Amino acid sequence: MSAAARQASGLAQLEAVLAAGGPRLARGLSRAEERLAEIGESHGEELGLHAANTLSAGGKRLRPLIVFLCGGQAPDNGTVSAAVAVELVHMATLVHDDVLDRAPLRRGRETVYKAAGRAAATFTGDFLFSRAFAELAATGSPDAVKTLSDASSALARGELMQRADAWSADVSSERYISRCTLKTARLFEAACRLGAIFGRAAVPGSVECLGAFGEKIGIAFQIFDDVLDVSGPPERTGKHRGTDLLDGTITLPLILARDREPNLKDLDLRTAVTNPAEADALCDRIADTGALTDAREEALTYVQQAKAALDEIDLPARQRRALELVADGVVERYA
Amino acid sequence: MSAAARQASGLAQLEAVLAAGGPRLARGLSRAEERLAEIGESHGEELGLHAANTLSAGGKRLRPLIVFLCGGQAPDNGTVSAAVAVELVHMATLVHDDVLDRAPLRRGRETVYKAAGRAAATFTGDFLFSRAFAELAATGSPDAVKTLSDASSALARGELMQRADAWSADVSSERYISRCTLKTARLFEAACRLGAIFGRAAVPGSVECLGAFGEKIGIAFQIFDDVLDVSGPPERTGKHRGTDLLDGTITLPLILARDREPNLKDLDLRTAVTNPAEADALCDRIADTGALTDAREEALTYVQQAKAALDEIDLPARQRRALELVADGVVERYA
Repeated sequence: MSAAARQASGLAQLEAVLAAGGPRLARGLSRAEERLAEIGESHGEELGLHAANTLSAGGKRLRPLIVFLCGGQAPDNGTVSAAVAVELVHMATLVHDDVLDRAPLRRGRETVYKAAGRAAATFTGDFLFSRAFAELAATGSPDAVKTLSDASSALARGELMQRADAWSADVSSERYISRCTLKTARLFEAACRLGAIFGRAAVPGSVECLGAFGEKIGIAFQIFDDVLDVSGPPERTGKHRGTDLLDGTITLPLILARDREPNLKDLDLRTAVTNPAEADALCDRIADTGALTDAREEALTYVQQAKAALDEIDLPARQRRALELVADGVVERYA
Repeated sequence: MSAAARQASGLAQLEAVLAAGGPRLARGLSRAEERLAEIGESHGEELGLHAANTLSAGGKRLRPLIVFLCGGQAPDNGTVSAAVAVELVHMATLVHDDVLDRAPLRRGRETVYKAAGRAAATFTGDFLFSRAFAELAATGSPDAVKTLSDASSALARGELMQRADAWSADVSSERYISRCTLKTARLFEAACRLGAIFGRAAVPGSVECLGAFGEKIGIAFQIFDDVLDVSGPPERTGKHRGTDLLDGTITLPLILARDREPNLKDLDLRTAVTNPAEADALCDRIADTGALTDAREEALTYVQQAKAALDEIDLPARQRRALELVADGVVERYA
């Protein structure tokens, strides 16, 4: 397995996905990795250093993987650019998130915020955004640029919505799902659409259908991420249980638990959860209501909807199998 | 004079520029203003509010003005989109700058940072960046997207360079000019290039030559801005003298003054300039060396170079006259 492919191992079923995707997929991921490294190295010493460190820090590369799988064919320049652009937008957001959260570490490495301060990190994020659009512009497809800029706008809206709702006592499931859609799913959707746009043998209707597939797995991914924050275990997720609760971020497990346990409705996170031990205790109370099981069920429903979206187009069996594995994979991490 | 045109009145010679640009220019500026308002109003309540407030806060609209003047013809949709996109990138940077500077006011109005906090402001900036590229993608020109994304990357590099050089005792004139080029001039250059790209009757060679014109007036603009920070008067500039000195930003007047006055070389801004009165006193010392006159001369040299760049192409006399007025205008603000 290549280094690039191994970096995608946040998916428990990565080996199966890679097997289904074949050597073309591994080649695409390697090319995207090389291009990300190039971008980090080619833009001046100060910024280049921070960008390069960010880009080489890896991560799952799940979004590039999805671009290649939706492309379906041997990765051409357009598909590689799309994979790189989607990852750049994702990383730009992470860099800005780290500034706002004053986060010292991400994926076990020092953040740009910690290493170089908030100004450097803010501008590194801005730079990564710019590079994403430059990368797509090079493909000559205004459609692709529009797809990514719309996703990027949605992302900003979703992030803002999350912070506007922090500590709130009355976030509904519906509002939570809208937030997941904006904050997470639109970029997954864009990854799928871009794959379809550049896929050499694009199947008719594939942009819309793969877009719908991406949106659904994006929502499932976010719900499952939020379940992991409550369920842990920390030795698998790499962070304390209840970090969202400590930040005041209201996620589906808490929303569902509040419906089931009246005492939780009146609990004010601001005063009740002020340290990791209290967060841990609240995670147990949430789990006791059965909310985690229900939230997982909800995530699985979106996975089913994602797979159903694939019924609408006539994909090669191998491509479809790989996409289904990814859909299953987003809710089976650390399982 | 339309409201949109009046907003551009940071240029002392605005009336002359508008007269030279004619009713087409006023119409273009009005259309850009309407489009900016639409963008603010169409993207969800939280973000829309902050974006709309930012976009309606006005400012000189100097960059859109330049796009239209370089376009030369009646403003079509592409030129309006380009004018809007350049202004969006400019405003995104201002919003992020305000977060980093913890600035409560800009142009006499509350900043997004002050009104809604650093998270809202960070994401509002990200949103404005995204909208800029969506706006350009709608024109169907990958060239235009690349032009703006390259300028936007340069801007991030320049901002970072400025903060990396803060408080430094040995910033050279050359490094200062490189910083101005990245931080300011590349976006002026992009404004000119975009105008030329969309100008219906593009003159051969105009993209390169107008780009060179834009770069030169951008550098002149930044030098003159830095002169105004030292010269004031505050009642015209709307800010205390020496705000750059208080931030540790090393600009051309100080660099030139340090060369002329050995005592200034050893002065550590961090300890010597800690309040507006000390900043005021240092501004006087800088002025006493003659550095302001020399810095103004340097700005004028770039203005001459800008005008010389126009010699390379055969522009209609009216368009050339308007561009020359803008070039003169960037160093005659508050004169």
